[in-house]
Amino acid sequence: MIEPARIATPWSYSLAVEAGNTVYLGLHRGRGNDLATQLDKTFAFIDETLRKLGLTRADLVKVSVWLKNIKDLPVMEKRFFDYFEKDKFPARMTSTTEFIDDCLVMVDGVAYRKGDK
Amino acid sequence: MIEPARIATPWSYSLAVEAGNTVYLGLHRGRGNDLATQLDKTFAFIDETLRKLGLTRADLVKVSVWLKNIKDLPVMEKRFFDYFEKDKFPARMTSTTEFIDDCLVMVDGVAYRKGDK
Amino acid sequence: MIEPARIATPWSYSLAVEAGNTVYLGLHRGRGNDLATQLDKTFAFIDETLRKLGLTRADLVKVSVWLKNIKDLPVMEKRFFDYFEKDKFPARMTSTTEFIDDCLVMVDGVAYRKGDK
Repeated sequence: MIEPARIATPWSYSLAVEAGNTVYLGLHRGRGNDLATQLDKTFAFIDETLRKLGLTRADLVKVSVWLKNIKDLPVMEKRFFDYFEKDKFPARMTSTTEFIDDCLVMVDGVAYRKGDK
Repeated sequence: MIEPARIATPWSYSLAVEAGNTVYLGLHRGRGNDLATQLDKTFAFIDETLRKLGLTRADLVKVSVWLKNIKDLPVMEKRFFDYFEKDKFPARMTSTTEFIDDCLVMVDGVAYRKGDK
Repeated sequence: MIEPARIATPWSYSLAVEAGNTVYLGLHRGRGNDLATQLDKTFAFIDETLRKLGLTRADLVKVSVWLKNIKDLPVMEKRFFDYFEKDKFPARMTSTTEFIDDCLVMVDGVAYRKGDK
């Protein structure tokens, strides 16, 4: 009976919690002046979280994206081709949300640790 | 150490990714002139994805529904009674989102493959 | 090959479905006049669902929160410090949605049953 591994924050949520072979990501948000910049930073931020757990972006099996502006969808879709290997894309959902600040995008998701734990 | 099974698309996401006994669905969207039509098509589309993995709608343990119009909620709730056996409903969440086109609903979710893999 | 355990409702969804060691929560909604009251009631409601499965709030590994009003975010963030032990927070995502009634917040999530099943 092992306690789930967590990437804690000073705020009231974890960036990631591992349960069995599955890692649940909390929100990772963008920073910057436009969607492309914010999305790149979001994925760099996710990489950092996954690395702390010995995982990489390729281990993501599901990602959920929240956009402030639905008109940013085509930019986001194109950008994803650079983020993952061809035919190795995670399952994805994209929806819109309001933000309290200048955030344009946030991403959460699920990663899977291959092999026995 | 087996690579997760994926239902790929020509776009930058997978329709489904299997990880262990769990299948993560990406967005499945509706087409048609009203919510009921679009929701029926969405579930036909999900059936098709699940069938490729040897699963059925009954294997869904969680579904998330995004509506364009919150006023479509009662229609959606009623429709679900036809989609699943009584007392065998998946856990469900429903929220609203904007869409870039004439989509009125999209659904993603999680299916579970019973038995050892 | 065991059928997933479910907490059924008279409506067309389950409050929770267990699959392997993972419990998927459906939406749990708030009731009351303000966000803090509704959020407290939502977590009491989640506790009740988890208790029926022999689990507690501490077993939550991921929670997703939907707010009607993004301005309620800081209240929600503060409230979470009371809901979980320090450094034992679940991964979290928060977005906004419309509601069809006077609901201000709903929560779903994932719990993990530690130990072999």
